[in-house]
Amino acid sequence: MAAVSLSVSTVKPLGDRVFIKVSESEEKTAGGILLPDTAKEKPQVGEVVQVGPGKRNDDGSRQAPEVGVGDKVLYSKYAGTDIKLGGDEFVLLTEKDILAIVN
Amino acid sequence: MAAVSLSVSTVKPLGDRVFIKVSESEEKTAGGILLPDTAKEKPQVGEVVQVGPGKRNDDGSRQAPEVGVGDKVLYSKYAGTDIKLGGDEFVLLTEKDILAIVN
Amino acid sequence: MAAVSLSVSTVKPLGDRVFIKVSESEEKTAGGILLPDTAKEKPQVGEVVQVGPGKRNDDGSRQAPEVGVGDKVLYSKYAGTDIKLGGDEFVLLTEKDILAIVN
Amino acid sequence: MAAVSLSVSTVKPLGDRVFIKVSESEEKTAGGILLPDTAKEKPQVGEVVQVGPGKRNDDGSRQAPEVGVGDKVLYSKYAGTDIKLGGDEFVLLTEKDILAIVN
Amino acid sequence: MAAVSLSVSTVKPLGDRVFIKVSESEEKTAGGILLPDTAKEKPQVGEVVQVGPGKRNDDGSRQAPEVGVGDKVLYSKYAGTDIKLGGDEFVLLTEKDILAIVN
Amino acid sequence: MAAVSLSVSTVKPLGDRVFIKVSESEEKTAGGILLPDTAKEKPQVGEVVQVGPGKRNDDGSRQAPEVGVGDKVLYSKYAGTDIKLGGDEFVLLTEKDILAIVN
Amino acid sequence: MAAVSLSVSTVKPLGDRVFIKVSESEEKTAGGILLPDTAKEKPQVGEVVQVGPGKRNDDGSRQAPEVGVGDKVLYSKYAGTDIKLGGDEFVLLTEKDILAIVN
Repeated sequence: MAAVSLSVSTVKPLGDRVFIKVSESEEKTAGGILLPDTAKEKPQVGEVVQVGPGKRNDDGSRQAPEVGVGDKVLYSKYAGTDIKLGGDEFVLLTEKDILAIVN
Repeated sequence: MAAVSLSVSTVKPLGDRVFIKVSESEEKTAGGILLPDTAKEKPQVGEVVQVGPGKRNDDGSRQAPEVGVGDKVLYSKYAGTDIKLGGDEFVLLTEKDILAIVN
Repeated sequence: MAAVSLSVSTVKPLGDRVFIKVSESEEKTAGGILLPDTAKEKPQVGEVVQVGPGKRNDDGSRQAPEVGVGDKVLYSKYAGTDIKLGGDEFVLLTEKDILAIVN
Repeated sequence: MAAVSLSVSTVKPLGDRVFIKVSESEEKTAGGILLPDTAKEKPQVGEVVQVGPGKRNDDGSRQAPEVGVGDKVLYSKYAGTDIKLGGDEFVLLTEKDILAIVN
Repeated sequence: MAAVSLSVSTVKPLGDRVFIKVSESEEKTAGGILLPDTAKEKPQVGEVVQVGPGKRNDDGSRQAPEVGVGDKVLYSKYAGTDIKLGGDEFVLLTEKDILAIVN
Repeated sequence: MAAVSLSVSTVKPLGDRVFIKVSESEEKTAGGILLPDTAKEKPQVGEVVQVGPGKRNDDGSRQAPEVGVGDKVLYSKYAGTDIKLGGDEFVLLTEKDILAIVN
Repeated sequence: MAAVSLSVSTVKPLGDRVFIKVSESEEKTAGGILLPDTAKEKPQVGEVVQVGPGKRNDDGSRQAPEVGVGDKVLYSKYAGTDIKLGGDEFVLLTEKDILAIVN
């Protein structure tokens, strides 16, 4: 097996998973948003870079994802899987962990 | 990626999520309501400022939300995600965590 | 946002939630009922003052509530959310936490 | 609100709940049954005195209860809600906690 | 309420429950079977003496039980409810806790 | 009740359960397979000797089992119920605990 | 029973399970991917070598797997069952534990 050369464009999320580039802290507060550090779930801002084909229904069809590539989103910080790629931080999570689009 | 400029109008909740402006404590007791501090779930008063498109059914259709923008609502204090925006407190939660409309 | 003036008539429970005025202890034993203090779930007597539109089915229709305004009911003491309003105690709970009508 | 005058005939269980008069210990062993004190769920003997309308199906219809008023039943001791009424012990539980009819 | 005279023939299991006479240890090893004492679920041998009408489907019909009166069965020792009747040990359990017929 | 004479041929698994003869350790490594001792679920090799009629669907039909008598299978070591019969080790487990056929 | 001679080609995963050859650490970073060691689920890179027939639907049909033999995939490190075969490391897991294809 040859070495795996990973780049953002080669990551194809399965099912209802979404690949998100994590926004840096500076950006998060630029618009005035402040994400408080409480005992409740922590939100995080990021940008969608890859979207899976959608959740498969029982009849084999798929639910179209509610987010698209380029959307800025608010998601739960503790959800999904952290990945670093070329110096940038990414997260792979399921669409239901995305709270809102904040374009 | 440009900095994210967040404002109430740019937050679009996904699915059955609702974006609520938390009412201040003074308001909560103005009408005579007193929310006791028991071991049970704590209620909180707020105003709906954004509503998602509704919960998606298995056939792709959506359930119309039971609350609308402007509704004063009672919700469980420990539910959802706290967000601060321009000095005000907000919470993003799913509609099922809203207990009642108290207009 | 103006102050919220809450009264019993302005509380509209969502879904299958029911708004109940908690009966005082004197009333509970007047009819001879005694609710023992065991390790099991504790019952409580109250009167229904507001009823939500009912649980929504998957097809969008609703299940008619089994209780109506004015019904005296027995419910689980630890269920739902306690609310005080004008000196009286109320509880907001889902219909499935109501054990029996005791009119 | 007038005082609640409770009697066996005024307790109307909701859904698939059943109202049972707990048999005294003397009765339980009269027939030779011995309910051992193990780490497993403890059985108890009682007599059905009120039966709810039955579990509601998703289409609004109801499942007819498997037990009727007057049936002697074996049920799990730790299930449901204990109630004392006029010196007698009762329990309110869901039909699925009834193990067998022992008429 | 008259005293309850229990006998094997008067125990009518509800739903998918099965009434089983526990086999004595001597019998269990007579056929060469040895039930090891591991950290996993413990099997036990018994004979079916009463069978409920079967699990009710959502449409009101019932699934015919897979075991019948007289079947020797292997079941999980920790499942169900122990009952002693006339000096013999019995257990009331749901059919899904029966592992195999060992006639 | 006569003594139960158990043999492999008299064990009839219920539902989707499968009766498996555990392979000895020597056999497991003969083909080069090595089952590491990690914190994750431990695999075990065995041979199917009896198969139940299959999982029952809601409409009463059954799903045909994916394994047959004689198949060598890999299964989770901690699943199911251990049984010794005539000096050999067996395990009774549900088909979903079988990971792969390794014929 | 003869000794089991295992090789990659003889491992046939059941249902929606997938047999994956674990990539060595050198390969994982070759493409610039860095899998951080956080408290969240750990990703791992591997290559699919065998795929089961797919998850069975309630009507007996199967959902076609989303991955195929030869796909490089990212999966949760703690999922599934580790297997060593001929000096190489493999893992058997269900398709839902695969996060993305990274060809």
